Amino acid sequence: MIIVVTGGAGFIGSNLVARLVADGHVVTALDNFSTGQERFLNAVREAPNFRLVRLDLVREPDRLPETLRGADLVVHLAANADVRFGTHHPRRDLEQNTLATFHVLEGMRAAGVRRIAFASTGSIYGEPDVFPTPEDAPFPVQTSLYGASKLAGEGLIQAYCEGFGFQGWIFRFVSILGEHYSHGHVFDFYRKLLANPDELEVLGDGHQKKSYLYVGDCVEAMLTAIARAQGRVNIFNLGTDEYCEVNDSVAWICEALGLRPRLRYTGGPRGWIGDSPFIFLDTRRIRALGWSPRLTIRESVIRTLCYLRDNRWLLEARG
Amino acid sequence: MIIVVTGGAGFIGSNLVARLVADGHVVTALDNFSTGQERFLNAVREAPNFRLVRLDLVREPDRLPETLRGADLVVHLAANADVRFGTHHPRRDLEQNTLATFHVLEGMRAAGVRRIAFASTGSIYGEPDVFPTPEDAPFPVQTSLYGASKLAGEGLIQAYCEGFGFQGWIFRFVSILGEHYSHGHVFDFYRKLLANPDELEVLGDGHQKKSYLYVGDCVEAMLTAIARAQGRVNIFNLGTDEYCEVNDSVAWICEALGLRPRLRYTGGPRGWIGDSPFIFLDTRRIRALGWSPRLTIRESVIRTLCYLRDNRWLLEARG
Repeated sequence: MIIVVTGGAGFIGSNLVARLVADGHVVTALDNFSTGQERFLNAVREAPNFRLVRLDLVREPDRLPETLRGADLVVHLAANADVRFGTHHPRRDLEQNTLATFHVLEGMRAAGVRRIAFASTGSIYGEPDVFPTPEDAPFPVQTSLYGASKLAGEGLIQAYCEGFGFQGWIFRFVSILGEHYSHGHVFDFYRKLLANPDELEVLGDGHQKKSYLYVGDCVEAMLTAIARAQGRVNIFNLGTDEYCEVNDSVAWICEALGLRPRLRYTGGPRGWIGDSPFIFLDTRRIRALGWSPRLTIRESVIRTLCYLRDNRWLLEARG
Repeated sequence: MIIVVTGGAGFIGSNLVARLVADGHVVTALDNFSTGQERFLNAVREAPNFRLVRLDLVREPDRLPETLRGADLVVHLAANADVRFGTHHPRRDLEQNTLATFHVLEGMRAAGVRRIAFASTGSIYGEPDVFPTPEDAPFPVQTSLYGASKLAGEGLIQAYCEGFGFQGWIFRFVSILGEHYSHGHVFDFYRKLLANPDELEVLGDGHQKKSYLYVGDCVEAMLTAIARAQGRVNIFNLGTDEYCEVNDSVAWICEALGLRPRLRYTGGPRGWIGDSPFIFLDTRRIRALGWSPRLTIRESVIRTLCYLRDNRWLLEARG
C-alpha cells in the first residue's frame, strides 16, 4: 500500500513508519519537527520505499492535496500530545489537533484519498464511572483541552465518513511506552533522578491508577485493526489488560536504577489539572480481532528506561 | 444579572433576549447578522436595559473581552444552525461553531467571566440505539459536520469548566419551532406550497421520526436549568415527550392551509446526508427541575405556520 503517516518522525509515528517500510509499503512520513526527531527515522532514511516531507499541517494545508495524492491510507498521528500543560496554551490543542485534523481531512478530500486512521486517546473518557472503560461507555464529559481536541478530531472524522464516504479507524490509546518515548512519567522520573538520586517529586498522591501499552504492541494493534475491521467507522481502545499505580512504576524504576530516593508527593488524587485518577480501558474489541499485547506494563516501563539510558541525548533535546 | 447573548438576533436568541429584557436583566445581544434579523429585536430595541453589538465571533475575537467584561453569564447561541448542507461547505461548521465557541471561551477568560450556557443539539447523538435518548447515552458516533462541530464546542466548554473554573450549561435541543423561526421543514413546506399548492416534495420517505419543541418552552427550560442546576457542567436534553413522523407534520400543515397536494417523496430513510431518521430525547433530567413544555408538537407546528403566514417577508429574506 501507499501510506502517509503524519507525525511520522514522532514517537509512535516513527515506530509505525519503520514497521511499514520493513513490510514493503511505500511510506511518506510528514512532520513539522516541532517535537519529532530526525534520528527516529535513521533506520528507514535510506530505504527506497521511504520519503520524508517536512510540512506543517496547521500552517501549510495547501501543500496537503499534492502530498497525499495516490495514497491508499493516511495514518494521522501528528498532534500536540502534551495533556498536562493544556491550560497554559489553550490554542495549541485547538490548532495542532482539531484544526490540523480538519486540514488533513480536507487535503484527503481534495486528493481523493478516503481511508484514515487516527490516534485518539483514552483521555477522551474524562473521568469515567465504568472500568475497564469500553468504547461505548456513557457519553463522557471532557476534563482536558487535549481530550476535547481529540474528541473534536474523532467527530470530524466520523462526519467525513458519513458525509463523504470516508472509512475511518479511531484508536483510543492509553499512554504508550517504548523506543523513541520522549515525554511522560518515565521520562520525567528518570530525568529528576539523574539530577538528584536522593529525592523524587511525585505529582499527586502516587495512587493514580494508569494503564500503559508498549509501542510495538500499539503498532501491531493498529495494523491488525486496519487489516481486519472494515466498518465505516471503526473505534478501538488500545491498552493492556492491567493497570498500575504511579507508585508501582516509581518502585520499578528505582529498583532498576538501584536507587532508594525519598519520595515527595505534591498531593491530591490528580497529578495536574485535567489528570485522570484512573485510566483502564476495555480492550475486548481489539482482542476479538486476534491481537494481544506481548509486554506487561512493568516490562514496558523497564524497556523504556533502558531506551532512555541508552539515548541520553533525548533527555537533553526535550529539556 | 448582566447577560450577553451571542446570536442574540437569531431565532432562539431573539426570543431569549426578549424574555431576559422583560425580566429586567441587563442584556447585550451580539450578532453578525449573517442569519439574524434586526426586526426580531423590535420589541426590545428601545429598552434601557438592552444593547445590541454587531460583532463577528470568527473574525473579530479581539473585541470580545471588552464586550463581555462585567457579565454574569454568557449564553452562546451564535452558530451555523444548518445541518443539511454541512457537506457543501465543511469549513463553515468548523469556523462558525467550533472556532467561534473557542473565541467566546477565550474572550470570557480574558474578561474574567466564567458562566456559559451553550446551545448544543440532539444531532450530537448521531443515530442512537436508545430511545428516548438520555444525556448519558452510549458514546455516540457523529453523522453530520454540524453535530461534530457542536460536539467540539461541548468538549471545549467542559474542558474550560475543569481547567479554568468555568461553570457550564449545555443544552441539547431537538428542532425548535415558533416565532422568528426561519429555517427547517415547516419553512420549506410552506414556501413550496405557496409556490405550488398542488404538489409537495418531501425529502426521504416521510417516515423520519422527529421531535420538536416550542421556542417559548425552550427559553423557559434554559432559564430553569441555569437557575436550578449548579453543578460544574450541567447537560440537559430539551425536547417534548413525544415525536411525530414527517408525514404527520405534512398532514397538519396541509390541513391548516386547506390544501391537498400530491406528495412526491425523494425516498430513503433519511432526508439528506447526515439526517437522523429518528430523534427522540429523554427529557427526565430537565423535567426533574420542575420544567415541562406547554405546547405539543402539533400546536408548535401550527403556531409556526401562523407566524410565517403573518411574516411573509421572512420567506423572502431567506430566499
